[in-house]
Amino acid sequence: MVYPNKINSILKKAQIEIGDTIELISGNKVYKGILMPHHEFSDDDIISIKLDTGYNVGISVNDKSELKLIEKNVKYERKDEELRYDNAKPTIAILGTGGTIASYVDYRTGAVHPALNAKDLAFSVPELAEMCNIRAKMLFSIFSENMKVEHWQELANEVADQMNNGARGVIVAHGTDTIGYTSSALSFMLSNLTGPVVLVGSQRSSDRPSSDANINLISAAQFGIDSDLGEVVVLMHGETSDSYISIHRGTRVRKMHTSRRDAFYSINEEPLGSVKNGKIILSQEYKKRGKGKVEVHDNMEKRVCILYPYPGIEIEHFDFLAEKNKGIVIAGTGLGHTPQELTNSIRNAVSSGVVVVMTSQCLYGRVNMNVYSGGRDLLKAGVISGEDMLPETAFIKLMWVLGQTHDSKEIKNLIETNLVGEIGKRRI
Amino acid sequence: MVYPNKINSILKKAQIEIGDTIELISGNKVYKGILMPHHEFSDDDIISIKLDTGYNVGISVNDKSELKLIEKNVKYERKDEELRYDNAKPTIAILGTGGTIASYVDYRTGAVHPALNAKDLAFSVPELAEMCNIRAKMLFSIFSENMKVEHWQELANEVADQMNNGARGVIVAHGTDTIGYTSSALSFMLSNLTGPVVLVGSQRSSDRPSSDANINLISAAQFGIDSDLGEVVVLMHGETSDSYISIHRGTRVRKMHTSRRDAFYSINEEPLGSVKNGKIILSQEYKKRGKGKVEVHDNMEKRVCILYPYPGIEIEHFDFLAEKNKGIVIAGTGLGHTPQELTNSIRNAVSSGVVVVMTSQCLYGRVNMNVYSGGRDLLKAGVISGEDMLPETAFIKLMWVLGQTHDSKEIKNLIETNLVGEIGKRRI
Repeated sequence: MVYPNKINSILKKAQIEIGDTIELISGNKVYKGILMPHHEFSDDDIISIKLDTGYNVGISVNDKSELKLIEKNVKYERKDEELRYDNAKPTIAILGTGGTIASYVDYRTGAVHPALNAKDLAFSVPELAEMCNIRAKMLFSIFSENMKVEHWQELANEVADQMNNGARGVIVAHGTDTIGYTSSALSFMLSNLTGPVVLVGSQRSSDRPSSDANINLISAAQFGIDSDLGEVVVLMHGETSDSYISIHRGTRVRKMHTSRRDAFYSINEEPLGSVKNGKIILSQEYKKRGKGKVEVHDNMEKRVCILYPYPGIEIEHFDFLAEKNKGIVIAGTGLGHTPQELTNSIRNAVSSGVVVVMTSQCLYGRVNMNVYSGGRDLLKAGVISGEDMLPETAFIKLMWVLGQTHDSKEIKNLIETNLVGEIGKRRI
Repeated sequence: MVYPNKINSILKKAQIEIGDTIELISGNKVYKGILMPHHEFSDDDIISIKLDTGYNVGISVNDKSELKLIEKNVKYERKDEELRYDNAKPTIAILGTGGTIASYVDYRTGAVHPALNAKDLAFSVPELAEMCNIRAKMLFSIFSENMKVEHWQELANEVADQMNNGARGVIVAHGTDTIGYTSSALSFMLSNLTGPVVLVGSQRSSDRPSSDANINLISAAQFGIDSDLGEVVVLMHGETSDSYISIHRGTRVRKMHTSRRDAFYSINEEPLGSVKNGKIILSQEYKKRGKGKVEVHDNMEKRVCILYPYPGIEIEHFDFLAEKNKGIVIAGTGLGHTPQELTNSIRNAVSSGVVVVMTSQCLYGRVNMNVYSGGRDLLKAGVISGEDMLPETAFIKLMWVLGQTHDSKEIKNLIETNLVGEIGKRRI
């Protein structure tokens, strides 16, 4: 990416271009290395330099910084040949949404680019182009915490279009923060999937030697090509080393660590399987590839929220949410409890048509409001059990269910029924 | 406990007393067993019968139910001798707050009583009275989801009183739902602890053969007597069997499963140790018993809340909380992010004096708002890093810090500083 105006003019004045070896003196420090392109997520005053160590550093440039050209980049030259379509190979669609994985490292310069097209991706991970024909499309370029219903809808329709036009699998490159919300949304929106929809992210940016981007992406492509699964899954590192990649069901996966590469866990079920040394193992039940056309049901009610109750929560906090929303997912304590004082407000909200679904802030285990009288009061007040759904999955499901029907019996029935693997069987 | 009026008069009419063997015909079913006392958490129309299997069942009684006396209970006879104070034994205080553990099983009848005094507890777990002199006190009898600041304050003062009057350790019997909130609150409120404060709960009620109440309680008493630790800890099953009990630091423990006996985990640090076959092992650093008097600093600012952001969250949801509260703990995504649209509101809230602390809904790992521009914007807006604190612990800490000082620099400093083991060392 091109640098913002101010830095761009400083670079022009010094006759420096991306790929050149430069020296930057900032304060007492001297940085020497290759000038990288502007990173989409960097601040406007930052320039990126690839040091000899292989790491890219971002350095703030101001009027006092000195910038020198050391050597013009003779090696950097952009190949421009087209990727040829090969009839013998399957086609995989790669949809970019932003986040760390959507950027890529140019192998020759180490530069971080947002991967905008098929050529970029082919350059970034040469193995991909050998495995399949790539149809790449950058749908948006946002941090995943900024994803909204509209993005999920656009994504779902694009996935269906790609599959209905010959893609054997679809890879969605996604920021890790909300990858579980998006995978849930796609799980509910898409039916009769004729192949895997593989969401993949990376916890370390591609400009770091420890990046998990490439192996996650290659495994996703392999899975998209070889697997007979027709579901939405998330592929991420199974442990901190590169030994294997876990395959998580889209409605069960949760980011359980802020920074580890193996941050993702399937909650309340085992991962569907793994990709290890190029071998795909699927050890749990799953839905097979459908025949015919992928269908999209992307209507969602946006007025849905998550409430995480805590000791001493004010009644008016709940009342405010009940007034503004058509659905509330409570991440209650233990088996699905809230401070007793809320029960009256919850009853009133349900009476006035708000759908309230109970999940647990424990995350693991199943909600059971029949055990204690507080829970029974919530059931009597009309709270629907979220069973063993994650709060985040219940939130997505509630938006989706309220987007499909206004019939209160049907709503309750849909919430309590396992639709796409989001609810497990009761053991007792 | 005595049955509510309606059932009580039915029982009187049939000349049935607690401990008698009875037969109850309800609908098509016949239940035969010993009549148990009314359980405090049962609905008013339920009578409890201990079946031959050892399980207690609660059965709804209405006008059509038939109730017959089979055999008067000749065995049931309440021992009333006083527990003698033994100079040779240490003294342990047991404070009841309610919840499953606070009830106990009478060994002779299997009846579930709320344990209200020392005699009850000595009857319920005979090993306790052999180990120590017991000072038992039922402070309140509530479900733990109904705990509030006032309860934590009363509890903290009672703990200090007990220790300052000779108790070698204090056991707090507590419902499991919010045990981690309470153990955090006590951790911040109490200083110079002259012995362990051991919170203990049970995931299975004492009327079930699989109950974990007894072993948790015995381990807690042993730990209170033998350990040289002066901190607030939570003792719960380390695995589903009775093989060992884990010792968790009060500010690090979290209920991670709705129903398993080994539901409790130390997050972002190893458990402090374990109690296994009567042997206490403490493998992590901990604070030793203090000398002198236990001090209480129990002031807390109640206007603090937890916000769990989700994709598409409305700005007005945050604004409402900012208007009503002096402190907000955000359980952000990933390294500590929120949808970008909230940043402006957060900046305004901080400007108007609201303290905003960032934690992660990942639970595991450390917040780092320096990595991405969205995080840096939050730092610039004045958001304080919750480091690797649990959202729940940060919530308690923020209430406590705002109860101690109004100086904004000191608030920030206290939040970011490890006070009682709630923040771990950075690895890098």
